[in-house]
This record gives sequence, structure tokens and C-alpha cells, in this order.
Amino acid sequence: MSLLERELREQPAALARLLERQSEYAAELGALLHRDDVRYLLIASRGSSSNAARYAQYLLGRASRVPVAFATPSLYTLYEQPPRLDGALVVGISQSGESPDVKAVVDEARRQGRPTIALTNEPASPLALSAEAVLPLEAGKERSVAATKTYLNSLGAIALLFAASTRDAQAWHELARMPAQVAAQLERSVADSARIEGYGAIGGGTVVGRGINYGSAFEIALKIRELSGLLFEAWSAADLMHGPVAAIAPDWPVIAIAPPGPAFASMETAIAGLAARRARLLVIAEAEDAALRLVPGVPEWLSPLVTVIPGQLVALRLAEFRGTDVDNPHGLQKVTLTR
Amino acid sequence: MSLLERELREQPAALARLLERQSEYAAELGALLHRDDVRYLLIASRGSSSNAARYAQYLLGRASRVPVAFATPSLYTLYEQPPRLDGALVVGISQSGESPDVKAVVDEARRQGRPTIALTNEPASPLALSAEAVLPLEAGKERSVAATKTYLNSLGAIALLFAASTRDAQAWHELARMPAQVAAQLERSVADSARIEGYGAIGGGTVVGRGINYGSAFEIALKIRELSGLLFEAWSAADLMHGPVAAIAPDWPVIAIAPPGPAFASMETAIAGLAARRARLLVIAEAEDAALRLVPGVPEWLSPLVTVIPGQLVALRLAEFRGTDVDNPHGLQKVTLTR
Repeated sequence: MSLLERELREQPAALARLLERQSEYAAELGALLHRDDVRYLLIASRGSSSNAARYAQYLLGRASRVPVAFATPSLYTLYEQPPRLDGALVVGISQSGESPDVKAVVDEARRQGRPTIALTNEPASPLALSAEAVLPLEAGKERSVAATKTYLNSLGAIALLFAASTRDAQAWHELARMPAQVAAQLERSVADSARIEGYGAIGGGTVVGRGINYGSAFEIALKIRELSGLLFEAWSAADLMHGPVAAIAPDWPVIAIAPPGPAFASMETAIAGLAARRARLLVIAEAEDAALRLVPGVPEWLSPLVTVIPGQLVALRLAEFRGTDVDNPHGLQKVTLTR
Repeated sequence: MSLLERELREQPAALARLLERQSEYAAELGALLHRDDVRYLLIASRGSSSNAARYAQYLLGRASRVPVAFATPSLYTLYEQPPRLDGALVVGISQSGESPDVKAVVDEARRQGRPTIALTNEPASPLALSAEAVLPLEAGKERSVAATKTYLNSLGAIALLFAASTRDAQAWHELARMPAQVAAQLERSVADSARIEGYGAIGGGTVVGRGINYGSAFEIALKIRELSGLLFEAWSAADLMHGPVAAIAPDWPVIAIAPPGPAFASMETAIAGLAARRARLLVIAEAEDAALRLVPGVPEWLSPLVTVIPGQLVALRLAEFRGTDVDNPHGLQKVTLTR
């Protein structure tokens, strides 16, 4: 078994560890989201962490009822024109904690006296040392270039902050059930991905999501690219239908993420439109006849923790079809030091 | 000549009209960016307008020295949990002014008593009627499905707001020269795109930009998709190198946007990395030996008004290679009513 697959299968245990060790501290941090002087959240991230940031944009936006902005790190580094941050709560997300541009945003926030939280798997990293508060991801050492358990635990950490901010016993209860549901999802998706055939000759594909699973679409596309070298892209169902759908030819592979919830109707419309164009659809949904079945009973706000799993396993399967070595994806490094 | 090409060639005249008719009013609106109670900008948009919004994120962020956030329209519509907007200045961008979700964000801002500006080509549209202030794009009627002159004038309107907010005579002077520079750029790019050969059999491509031209990368990729049906995608040079570059195979077409300015060094590094992977590079730059040459002397803050032109002409050329009818791109409509 590849290192990557081993780490991917560690996800339920890694998530359980995060919840066990950090729930109490997260409950403390949750209060930050309701501070009177917090008018918006500003998130700095790169790579897979930016996909987790999209989950935070929806979930923490709903928790704090303020908009969530993504930092443009180049304004802090290349252009040296950092903005005034009064009103901001700044969250830096970096699995390695090494990204200099994510750190630059957190440093600037501290200089301006704003509250800062780092979500990182490395509590002794430069980012962790910069931030006022650190929520460790507790994923354990991740050795694969492609992030799996650190990604899932980034989502878990964001869900913890959400549960903390709602002070709602129901939310804590739903979150506590997730390690078991991620384990069940893994089992189901291993079986489903084994049944996928005939993708050996594809040239690429598209992943579509909306609302809280918008970030999941990006993460699945990224994972497939990293592991198989196939060109996959991600779109919001709403934006795709605005024009970019012109490039979806008959037989083009499309993975559609459609768990139950408020975004389901919009996804159904997009799926119908894609089917009319004769795209080759792989739907991630609860329906028993979905190609990539979701375990039932996961509430919508936690659905990104399970929807990513079939995506990771499809990525692994496509890499197998292509004969790529998932532990040594061509030309990639674990940590990229973008300035 | 196609309708699209005719409208594309009207861009210098359309931009001149915008500057002539709206400079005075924009100077008035510019003061909004410096209101004491504005702690961040919130932009709502879809499609091409979202690419213009990325320009606003950099430029208006620098003008007002506050972060610029993009609204997540589904929080206002699908999830019915609009955020508290105190501290926000809300900008809605929609060429048609018909997009219901962009309007939903502006409506909510007005309900909460926040200042709102609409940038639209239709001053009698629902969006224009919702917003407190309307800056008309003055592009004239656009009949093509693919936006060209309305996109350029969206950038022009954002540049006007920037010039107004700086109250700097130099900025106004630089902006006033742009219609002539866009005309010169058109002429140069018509010549350069005619020299492009051997792209008849490509399967897709990637467009890379950074900083102020991040949005230009998305707009060029979108235009190529819309006109030729080829699958083009866009990346920030920083994010691409974090993992997605794994999918860039030898001979894969890559358009790199590298005008002079603070992002140039970072683009040079990315171009070197892509060349090492033997990507098939088309560089948009001032250098005389660039495949897609930029007219010299355009200041960096205005560079997106010229960098998009070679992209539009490459899109037209690729459509010609593919034999697609650019006035009737398959299955697209001018206005998409996403809720």
C-alpha cells in the first residue's frame, strides 16, 4: 500500500484525535468570532489550505454572521501595501506553517493589534509562533506530498470553531459522530471507486460543487491533478453555467458533488444541464444509485468532511489507471515557499 | 467580420466614451472609498464581472487601504443567512444588471443602511435600481454572448474609481491616455495573433497571472472557452506552483501574463519552471521577442486594460482554427439568471 493510501485511511483516527484533544480549547477560541469589534474575517492560505478556507468562508460566515474575505498575500509582500485591518479577525491556515506569505498577513495583523488564529499541523512552525492563538490540527506527521489527513483535519478544526461559536449541544453531538461516519464513508468509497472502469484514456475532467461544498470541488480537482497528473478543474455550479460550460464536450468527465441540503436543487439543475450536453457524469450523492455514494445522515454543515473522501479515492484510482507513483508525483515538493 | 470582432474593435472608442462621460461623477464617488466607517469592500459579481472584480480587489484595496471581500451570494439566497454588513461598502458588478444574486447582496446592504455602488452597462436594470449609486459602463449595446467591451469598460470604471480616490493628477493623466494605448495594443495584437500557427489540434491550455493581472488570467481563459470551446483554465503563478503544476505536461499550451511591475519577478520564476516542464509557452510581455507583445509605457496599475487584448485575439484565432462560430457559441445565453 502506498504511503498516500495509508495516510488517507488514517483519516478517521486523525479526526478523532483532533476532536479529543482540541474541543476544549476550540470552545475558548469560539468566543473570538463574536467579539464586538470583529466586523469581518480575513483568511490567509495557499494550496489545499485554500480549499479548507472556502469551507470556512461559508461555515464561519454563518457562525459569526459577518463576511469572510481571503487575503491577497501579494499586497503584503510584492506590493508592500498592507491594508488597514481594523474590524478584522485574521485566520492563517497552513498545514506546514512554513508559508511565508500566509505568515506575512498574520504578522501584519499582530502589528495592527488585531486578533489572530493559526490552524496548522506544526505548533512550532513560523506561522504558529506568529499568531496569538494556535489550533493544532493533530493529524500526526504527514509524509505524502498530497495532503489528505491534514486537509480533513483543517475542515475538522473549522467545524470545531463553528460548533464552539454556536454553543449548541446538537452541533457538538453531530461533530462527535464524524470520525465514525468518515470511517464508514471510506469503506463505501473504496468499494465504489473499485467499480469505476474505463477512465484510462481520459484527458482531464471537471468537478462541480456549490455552497458549502464549493471548496470540496477544488480539493478533489487538486487531488486528482497531484496524484494522476490529469488536468482537472473546479467550478461553482452557478459560475460554470454562466459561460465556461461551453468547453464541456460530450463524454468529458464531470464529478458533481450533490449531498442533501440547500444547494441540492441548484446542483440538480446543473447536473441536468450537463447530462443534456452528454457529459460523463460521476455524481457524489446519498442516492443508492449514485456512482459515488455518500453515507446517509451527515448534516449539511459537516458534509465536506465526507464528500472529499470519494474524490480522494477516485484520484487514487485514476493514478492507478495512469500508472503514476502517488508517493512521488512528478516535480512536486511538500512545502512551497511562495513569497 | 463577426459581431464579436466588431465589438472587440470598438473597445478604444467605448473606453474613451466612459472616461469622457463619467470622470466627473466617478470623482464624486471616489470619496466613498475613504469614508471613516468603511472598513472593507464587499463585491458581488458573476462571470466576466468576477474577473473585473479581481482587478478591483487589488486596485481598490490599494486605493482604500482596506481588504476587499467577494460576497458569497448563496449565503443571501440559498442559505438565507445574510451577514451583518456594518463596515462594508458594497459594489455590485453586472454588465446586464439582471443577475438576481448580485442584486440580492446589494438589496441586503441597502436594508442594513450601507453604501452601495452598481457598475453596470444598463442604468435602468434591476441592479441599477437597487443600488444607491450607479456608475454606467457606457460601453454601448453589446450583442455578442462573450463580453469584450463591457469587460474592458468594467476595468475602466474601476480604474476611474481608483484615480478618483487617489486625487492624484498623475493617475488621471495616465488613465486619459488609455484609449489610445488600447487602440495601439489592438493593432499590435491583431498582427501577433495572425502569426500564431499550429494550435489546431490542442486539447486545452492554462493561463497564468499574478497580482493585478490575476483576474486577466481568468478573463482570457474564459474568453477562449466561450469562443472556441477549448478547455482553458486560469491560475495564480503562486498557487499553480503549489501542486496543480503536476498536470502541466510537455507541449501543454500555457499563456503567461508578464507585464512590467512588482509581479514580474514572480512571473519570470514561474515561466522558467514551466519552460523546464517543456510547456508550450505564449508570453504576454513588453519584450520585443515576446510572442504576444504589449505596447510599452502602460503603468502597472492600468496593465489589465491592455493585457486582456492579446488574450481576446488569441481566443478569436483559436476559434478560427476550430471552426466555431463566435457569434453563436454552443448552448450559451447572454444573461444567466442564477439564484
